[in-house]
Amino acid sequence: MKSRTGVVALLSACAVSAVTTAWAAPPPAMDRAAMEAKFDSAIDPAEMGRWLKDLASQPNHVGSPHDKANAEWMAAQFKAWGWDTKIETYDVLYPTPISEALELVAGGGAPFKATLTEKPIPGDEPTFTKDALPAYVAFQGDGDVTAPLVYANYGMPEDYLALEKMGISVKGKIVITRYGGGWRGLKPLLAQMHGAAGAIIYSDPKDDGYSTEEVYPKGPARPPQGFQRGSVADMPIYPGDVLTPGVGATKTAKRLDRKDAVTILKIPCLPIGYGDAQVLLSALEGPLAPAGFRGSLPITYRVGGGDGAKVHLMVKSDWSMKPLYDVIATLKGSEAPDDWIVRGNHHDGWVMGASDPLSGMVAELAEAKSMGAMVKAGWKPKRTIVYASWDGEEPSLLGSTEWAETHADELKAKGVVYINSDGNGRGYFRAEGSHAFQHFVNEVSADVKDPETGVSVRDRARARLAVGMAEGGGAGRGGENNPQTKAAANDPSKDLPIGALGSGSDYSTFLQHLGLPSIDFGYGGEGDSGGVYHSLYDDYQHHSTFVDPGFTYDALLAKTVGRAVMRLADADLPVQRYADFADTVSTYLDEVKKLADTTRDTAKTQARLLSSGAFKLAGDPTKPNVAPAPLAQSPSYDFKPLEAAVAKLKASSAAFDGALASKGAGLSKPQKVKLDNVVRPLDQAMLRPEGLPGRAWYMNMVYAPGRFTGYGAKTLPGVREAIEERRFDDAAKYIGITAQALDAYSAELDKATAVLNGG
Amino acid sequence: MKSRTGVVALLSACAVSAVTTAWAAPPPAMDRAAMEAKFDSAIDPAEMGRWLKDLASQPNHVGSPHDKANAEWMAAQFKAWGWDTKIETYDVLYPTPISEALELVAGGGAPFKATLTEKPIPGDEPTFTKDALPAYVAFQGDGDVTAPLVYANYGMPEDYLALEKMGISVKGKIVITRYGGGWRGLKPLLAQMHGAAGAIIYSDPKDDGYSTEEVYPKGPARPPQGFQRGSVADMPIYPGDVLTPGVGATKTAKRLDRKDAVTILKIPCLPIGYGDAQVLLSALEGPLAPAGFRGSLPITYRVGGGDGAKVHLMVKSDWSMKPLYDVIATLKGSEAPDDWIVRGNHHDGWVMGASDPLSGMVAELAEAKSMGAMVKAGWKPKRTIVYASWDGEEPSLLGSTEWAETHADELKAKGVVYINSDGNGRGYFRAEGSHAFQHFVNEVSADVKDPETGVSVRDRARARLAVGMAEGGGAGRGGENNPQTKAAANDPSKDLPIGALGSGSDYSTFLQHLGLPSIDFGYGGEGDSGGVYHSLYDDYQHHSTFVDPGFTYDALLAKTVGRAVMRLADADLPVQRYADFADTVSTYLDEVKKLADTTRDTAKTQARLLSSGAFKLAGDPTKPNVAPAPLAQSPSYDFKPLEAAVAKLKASSAAFDGALASKGAGLSKPQKVKLDNVVRPLDQAMLRPEGLPGRAWYMNMVYAPGRFTGYGAKTLPGVREAIEERRFDDAAKYIGITAQALDAYSAELDKATAVLNGG
Repeated sequence: MKSRTGVVALLSACAVSAVTTAWAAPPPAMDRAAMEAKFDSAIDPAEMGRWLKDLASQPNHVGSPHDKANAEWMAAQFKAWGWDTKIETYDVLYPTPISEALELVAGGGAPFKATLTEKPIPGDEPTFTKDALPAYVAFQGDGDVTAPLVYANYGMPEDYLALEKMGISVKGKIVITRYGGGWRGLKPLLAQMHGAAGAIIYSDPKDDGYSTEEVYPKGPARPPQGFQRGSVADMPIYPGDVLTPGVGATKTAKRLDRKDAVTILKIPCLPIGYGDAQVLLSALEGPLAPAGFRGSLPITYRVGGGDGAKVHLMVKSDWSMKPLYDVIATLKGSEAPDDWIVRGNHHDGWVMGASDPLSGMVAELAEAKSMGAMVKAGWKPKRTIVYASWDGEEPSLLGSTEWAETHADELKAKGVVYINSDGNGRGYFRAEGSHAFQHFVNEVSADVKDPETGVSVRDRARARLAVGMAEGGGAGRGGENNPQTKAAANDPSKDLPIGALGSGSDYSTFLQHLGLPSIDFGYGGEGDSGGVYHSLYDDYQHHSTFVDPGFTYDALLAKTVGRAVMRLADADLPVQRYADFADTVSTYLDEVKKLADTTRDTAKTQARLLSSGAFKLAGDPTKPNVAPAPLAQSPSYDFKPLEAAVAKLKASSAAFDGALASKGAGLSKPQKVKLDNVVRPLDQAMLRPEGLPGRAWYMNMVYAPGRFTGYGAKTLPGVREAIEERRFDDAAKYIGITAQALDAYSAELDKATAVLNGG
Repeated sequence: MKSRTGVVALLSACAVSAVTTAWAAPPPAMDRAAMEAKFDSAIDPAEMGRWLKDLASQPNHVGSPHDKANAEWMAAQFKAWGWDTKIETYDVLYPTPISEALELVAGGGAPFKATLTEKPIPGDEPTFTKDALPAYVAFQGDGDVTAPLVYANYGMPEDYLALEKMGISVKGKIVITRYGGGWRGLKPLLAQMHGAAGAIIYSDPKDDGYSTEEVYPKGPARPPQGFQRGSVADMPIYPGDVLTPGVGATKTAKRLDRKDAVTILKIPCLPIGYGDAQVLLSALEGPLAPAGFRGSLPITYRVGGGDGAKVHLMVKSDWSMKPLYDVIATLKGSEAPDDWIVRGNHHDGWVMGASDPLSGMVAELAEAKSMGAMVKAGWKPKRTIVYASWDGEEPSLLGSTEWAETHADELKAKGVVYINSDGNGRGYFRAEGSHAFQHFVNEVSADVKDPETGVSVRDRARARLAVGMAEGGGAGRGGENNPQTKAAANDPSKDLPIGALGSGSDYSTFLQHLGLPSIDFGYGGEGDSGGVYHSLYDDYQHHSTFVDPGFTYDALLAKTVGRAVMRLADADLPVQRYADFADTVSTYLDEVKKLADTTRDTAKTQARLLSSGAFKLAGDPTKPNVAPAPLAQSPSYDFKPLEAAVAKLKASSAAFDGALASKGAGLSKPQKVKLDNVVRPLDQAMLRPEGLPGRAWYMNMVYAPGRFTGYGAKTLPGVREAIEERRFDDAAKYIGITAQALDAYSAELDKATAVLNGG
């Protein structure tokens, strides 16, 4: 679901195998290498391509016949490969449009009716389907409004500040924003919060169209009529079924009234292509758009806001319930059947869903087939392996969330880790996840060979990071400012840091609601799926031509995740390195403290500039130039509780890691079981029952999706976001709550260390 | 001549007049205020508008009838206002095209003939002229070539590195670059240095067209057919007449053969509008242009380089001599007639030249008229005031350079300072110049009231800087990273730093060849002249509609420069504060030392990445990905001589400033004359006879235009550029030479201090 365009990996591992500690490695390394080679040999890219072609042959969104058929076909495959398989069904609210309209009724080229249609591509048969969902974003608010149009750039908070500076209000108006700059769902939400009557989202060719590459079918980029569907449910409040927050959407679940579901938008919203958008934007008058607002349409971008350009926007949806089909397949563990390694990828797409999500789904299928064959040949995984194919990820992480909420108690008792993938493509290895698994991820990626270069995918990721940093561009994500990343880029003896998980795929509920450590794997950055993201054109022909010709990297994903799963299933000691987690949290605390300073300085500076009249003096008096609203002056926070908690976490982590390295191998079988029982639920200590301010479903005090970033992670979110949003009381309060969570975590770590020390 | 688009001021002054030292201020402050009010009262914006309309009524480039007529008309005015006036004539090589062609002969929309024509605008009468110069850039190389086309972005050194990475050579090809990113003249020069057969420069709408504003006549921006003329003479070697470097182009001057004039380009080059460019760029195949290469034409930018798109480029010029008409007007000083305050603005334009240069020229005329009236009313300036209206600035700073070279000995003996202006517009005060005059510039700008806001132009500049820094955008020029700028932005008791002068207008020869301290003044940043820069459309209607309606800021320029000139003419003690110069040079040394470290680190990092194969690993193997050529490893430099020289300069400056403040007012008349005779030529100590490496005409060891920036200043250029360009021997050598120049400067300062101390 998450667009990977422009997102780049930070991942690699220690090059010298001597650094690998012994405790992660029974079966012995030689046995493991042979076993993994055998696993690889059954991964067949051509077969994966055939699966992909079939799964992506028809629209497979939630509620479509092909969605169900795909689930049933996959379930049959899992069964045939020897997995204990079932389809779990949930009933969720899932709106789809019955009728919709978007028209320019005054100004510029009015009257003009937006096409709202993606033309079929001659030679690409599936694009001639009659069953594709129309232009729409799920969980918009239905409505029928006619109002002046305002252009709000990416529709992010800073864009509204820029509009205010120009004296432009969006109240009662229809806001048009472009994709990019933040998660889609925030665009209509922020428009609504600013009083808009409706919202339109379009793909500007600068970010997603002819400026980025030749357009499909000549190249991979978005053609003028291509639009991006997607969810605009307010998932930063809670994901999953909008009517059953916190519980599984089973037949008998207690459900909210639709009107009480706060994550449904109140205003209508539609996505359009840049062909249609150009007509709307050309009609705008009002102030010249600031430089950062300008895309690459051949027009002078203006922000509008007056009565010149008026738009009629209408959406009416069918708000009925639809079934979800989660495929759940299990290989039971031979020694610890109640230790679950859960791995998932979703199977629903917005239309054909070839790159997103089926490229990752066929990797999961290939893993399952190969593991099934290995079990038939005698392999007995020690822990239970649960393979899930989720439905309904696209609208709101529905399938994974409802399953996780339904099985919450069991998952909290048995879950070891959740491993996720989603859309995949040719390119560089990337992984994000729980930082205690950073070294493990490094080890796995050190043992997977990149087919294009012949080195490990970890070495390639490190080379890319090093070159990116040398060339000043970094390697995305701002990791280049992280001292650990800097050090690791050029020192192959160091693990490459992994990023934190925000949201945008199915790990969210496991990590952030249940406290189950999670890792998300993928490849990308060379093959380009961005241009057809969530459009009709994300199909087999596009994926096999532009994204992963030969399915080489889809197969590589299977080899990568398969290794991770098998090693976790067979490890008889924890693979975690808690010092990595502690060091990372320490970095987060440094960031948050710096943020507190910056936020305080910003308010002070603003007050000085306001009182001296500098904002007025600095502006062009012939243009609207409204001084900003005064910021409240931030207090100084007492970070001592958090500083103490982080210091304790570092000490406890070091003690555990040291004890595990020196004593782990010598543990008796009962001691190992005892250790496992302490370590397995350890990350649940990061949860706090209060949850985050205003969004209690999110209980993880270290990792969350940002309230106003959506996909992007916010770490130490209770504190960080309160500082950012100037909720001073919350900031002070969550310094304490977060410290308590970390202290609880350290206490659990100490218990584990005591087991290692013979306790 | 220099485009001010995007260039912003750093200037302001101390708010508290108590900080103003007494020595700058006989006549007493009250007298001065009255005198300056009287001066202001004669500045009539409406009259300036009438002058502008007439001067800009017909094309007035070098050699045109209206150029000569304008000179004669201005000379008559100066005379009528009581100035001793003459026209000095020089004979210079000045090519203009006889015939030219640009055609796409293969690929895309071929055959296509570029229009090379700027259409007249109905309602804007002067644009119907038949006498405008065609599309051309002066001192290109003439030729007739047909070759494949390559797109090289801005055509700057880093763009060639990017092309090399893609495996694209421009050898034997025609390079198309867009305007921006560096001085125009470097684009064909660098193409030539890389072996290209021809060059084309176009204005991309992202930088200069519909993306920036509505196009003329609806708005101020460049229309599709508008092209930017300009000089491509290799002025960073030497400006002025290409045949008479270092000497005045008088009738009898010894002249080079044209073939020996190294500053004339060897390959043909033409400028075009984006209407024509779109057809050429659309025809390109080859690798996708990197993100930084993409403009906002509605196309997929590719770099070409193959045989698909071929272009025929032909230019044939008339290489005859043309006359220059410099108007030189003098008000003789009553007490120190051999102390000259020289002030200039050029009068030649590329077509009508309304904004560039005539908006500045009419300010100079208004100053001259008002000063003339004041002389008639009894004012007797103590020093001689020389007002110059230069011809031929546009092609190569011809008029100012030939006059300065002709009168070099006299200028070195008599020159106190050179004050320049050029095109002007509505907006913010800016000044750059010799840093000993920083405090003086601050004092002047503190006493000029901004008509839009009612505060001093210095206060407004400070407010703009402060807001720019608070909003993270800075205020241009990178000054926001300068600690002095940071401190001054929010502290009204501090002087705002002024920028260093590079080139791009007539101060160059005075400052960099003769060692005469110089200051360049102007307003801009609100009115927008960038869109018609050097095109047919820079005319009266455009200037009066979009750039400076009511000529308010053109009048303000007259009030500003007039104050500076009159104060300098009447000051009986030096206005310089040498500590400002010393502090600034100290900052430059810090920058250069940091640069040396960075340059060394870059080479080390590159070597490591090359040896590990990281460049290859980091790239997409399906695309061209050539590892960079290895950089030579930089040595560690011994900066001690420069460090010692800067320390000495600081000490000598502090001693002088202190002595002047405490003892200046008490000097006897003969002592003041003695002091004046030491201080006046002091900046000539910055000159070294060796000149800069490879461009000996530039003798100033502190200020120079960059060899590969053209307009942009390079300070401590002998050292800085040698480090940047990895000329290690030059760097070491110029550390010594620059230290010698600074030491000589300090020695002169010490002499002046001795005079103050009764010596």
